Amino acid sequence: MQKISSISLARFPISNACSSTRRTHSSFQYANLTVEKSTKKQRLPSDPDKLGFGRYFSNHMIDIDWDVKDGWFAPKIRPFQNFSIHPASKVLHYAQEIFEGLKAYYGVDGKIRVFRPELNMERMRRSARRATLPDFNTREALLLMDELIRTDADMIPKTDQASLYIRPMMFATDQHLGIGESMQAKWACFTAITGSYFDYERGIRLLADPEMVRSWKGGVGQYKMGCNYAPTIFVGKMAAMHGCDQAMWLSGDNRMVTEAGAMNLFMLWTNEDNELELITPSTESGLLLPGITRQSVLELAREWNLMKVSEANFTMCDLAKAIREHRVHEFFVSGTAANVGPVSEILHCDKERGIMEKLLIPTMNSKMQLYKRLHTTLSDIHYGRIEKPEWQRVVEL
Amino acid sequence: MQKISSISLARFPISNACSSTRRTHSSFQYANLTVEKSTKKQRLPSDPDKLGFGRYFSNHMIDIDWDVKDGWFAPKIRPFQNFSIHPASKVLHYAQEIFEGLKAYYGVDGKIRVFRPELNMERMRRSARRATLPDFNTREALLLMDELIRTDADMIPKTDQASLYIRPMMFATDQHLGIGESMQAKWACFTAITGSYFDYERGIRLLADPEMVRSWKGGVGQYKMGCNYAPTIFVGKMAAMHGCDQAMWLSGDNRMVTEAGAMNLFMLWTNEDNELELITPSTESGLLLPGITRQSVLELAREWNLMKVSEANFTMCDLAKAIREHRVHEFFVSGTAANVGPVSEILHCDKERGIMEKLLIPTMNSKMQLYKRLHTTLSDIHYGRIEKPEWQRVVEL
Repeated sequence: MQKISSISLARFPISNACSSTRRTHSSFQYANLTVEKSTKKQRLPSDPDKLGFGRYFSNHMIDIDWDVKDGWFAPKIRPFQNFSIHPASKVLHYAQEIFEGLKAYYGVDGKIRVFRPELNMERMRRSARRATLPDFNTREALLLMDELIRTDADMIPKTDQASLYIRPMMFATDQHLGIGESMQAKWACFTAITGSYFDYERGIRLLADPEMVRSWKGGVGQYKMGCNYAPTIFVGKMAAMHGCDQAMWLSGDNRMVTEAGAMNLFMLWTNEDNELELITPSTESGLLLPGITRQSVLELAREWNLMKVSEANFTMCDLAKAIREHRVHEFFVSGTAANVGPVSEILHCDKERGIMEKLLIPTMNSKMQLYKRLHTTLSDIHYGRIEKPEWQRVVEL
Repeated sequence: MQKISSISLARFPISNACSSTRRTHSSFQYANLTVEKSTKKQRLPSDPDKLGFGRYFSNHMIDIDWDVKDGWFAPKIRPFQNFSIHPASKVLHYAQEIFEGLKAYYGVDGKIRVFRPELNMERMRRSARRATLPDFNTREALLLMDELIRTDADMIPKTDQASLYIRPMMFATDQHLGIGESMQAKWACFTAITGSYFDYERGIRLLADPEMVRSWKGGVGQYKMGCNYAPTIFVGKMAAMHGCDQAMWLSGDNRMVTEAGAMNLFMLWTNEDNELELITPSTESGLLLPGITRQSVLELAREWNLMKVSEANFTMCDLAKAIREHRVHEFFVSGTAANVGPVSEILHCDKERGIMEKLLIPTMNSKMQLYKRLHTTLSDIHYGRIEKPEWQRVVEL
């Protein structure tokens, strides 16, 4: 063992050290923002296909501290850099952390549009309440994100094959180990230049195994809390071992279908009453995340009025039966990263009931191609080929 | 809005920057340890009653980095200081984090003893597997923790009213946002000089509400993963609003009793067969953490052979009925922070079934005073008043 004798080492400053005296209790304020420009520039691959998801970060980030006594510190936009985090911070031990995911797009008309960000901020505030993290004002958060996007606007690729993924987050930074309400927290937001998420040509393959359960009644499945994700990483690995892309989450003894990976899901089928129906699991159970893309798909489908549109529960048994009877025309996932993606196969493993079956879904050969129409329409709205102002927040440059 | 124009700011070094070339794949190695002594000294309150839990940290910490390509870097003991963490690290978003809690005690003979640390390290390795974090060798971890304790040995209060709480932890430090297996991680350990956790004179009051569910079949309740704790913070706040100290966790439609707060629980009762029985919920369900104090209580009780000792499930209905029939003699919690603590009251709220009742348990007036005997015996083993070498790891100074 080597010993280095007594070296004086300056400690990192504590994370909420801040000289500003502007503090506010109900929310951080855009009016108090300070901006410190970065002198470093990130290098990006020129081919959007090489961007992947969440690997290339832009040059700046938002950073705002809070404590229970004095409220919110003045927001900062500063160069993208590591956080200095106390080893006893609750985020590192008890997962007291929430996040959001949304996107900004470089439009065909040169305008930058963010897709329905007010819905993300409203959801983030609901997550904050459940995670006992402080509340903030939606409008102030939107103004700050606008400013962050503006600051790094030149990094957004001028193509509809890429976008700027925006990651707001909040976590507890208390410097003691007791499990209790947070006295200190940090709200931050950074962005990643992002390509496409899935290879849609092959379709998505899902593993449905009732032994792997994402959420439960009395839990926090409907909130975007970090704690919902850690347990899914091992399950994702298991899915990959079975040749699948994601897990499809089932819940309860009746194997209710809820989500796939970190996405919502939809089925276009001929139901037991011989109606053409687009169905997605209801959020009333509290088991699944109320996705912004999910909500947008529902609103578009209701607007188009081509079929019955339902938010209702269905079981794995309903699904398997319908697939066997050729009544499932399309099955697809929805999410910010994935947009809308077709599912081609469900591997159904239920050890308890002795089931191991591969269910093929003809999504990509369906007559209606609803998933594709939804994908295209959403993409058209994202990139400004269709004007739908109430879904498009334009960032003035 | 104020703008600070273009200031050059050195970024923090990335968290795994390390000049050492000693890397090992299967585990970090004590033999590769480097020690950098702190020149700063923490100031502690002189009264152990003012220490509280996990507020006063000692001067040093263990810090070890890992990446999937090269394995474990050489371990470091260095001055206690903040971590530098990349904003996209999985620990901050997806709660990919695990921890342990154990204690070292300054014995009546001047020896420092750690209570059964090998059990904590074995449990930590099980948690790591479930959280898809890297494995390590139990013996190497124990040697490193010995060294950390030795380094700050003079900070351990020479009283049986205090102890050194040891907090090993591991978390994912990958610098991208994809939800997947970790490619980079950090193993760390620090210690906190700690007083007593509960006021035992009053007894502990628990809130039992089946709407608040800690864990579920197919989840990760049996692992010490950070994700199990975040959802409980709000519930702890609710318990406090009802005048209770902790939540008692129930599970399933039959309201199975599982844990209380972050502790295991025990009941000494006259069971339906008129036998005197010490019962604790079984870990077979996968719903509860297999506590080290729980295991030690079971082993002591079986050794003493004063009553039937069972690991088996019981429901809130069983418990309430038995309390009403005056068959519950003692009800107590067990944990590293709490040792063994008496429960005096359960507030039972079951909206669905229209139940709201206060159940008083005469634990502190029981004839047998089993909880007190267990508390004293464990404390005697902790502080070396009783020799039980297989439970006491002596740290050679």
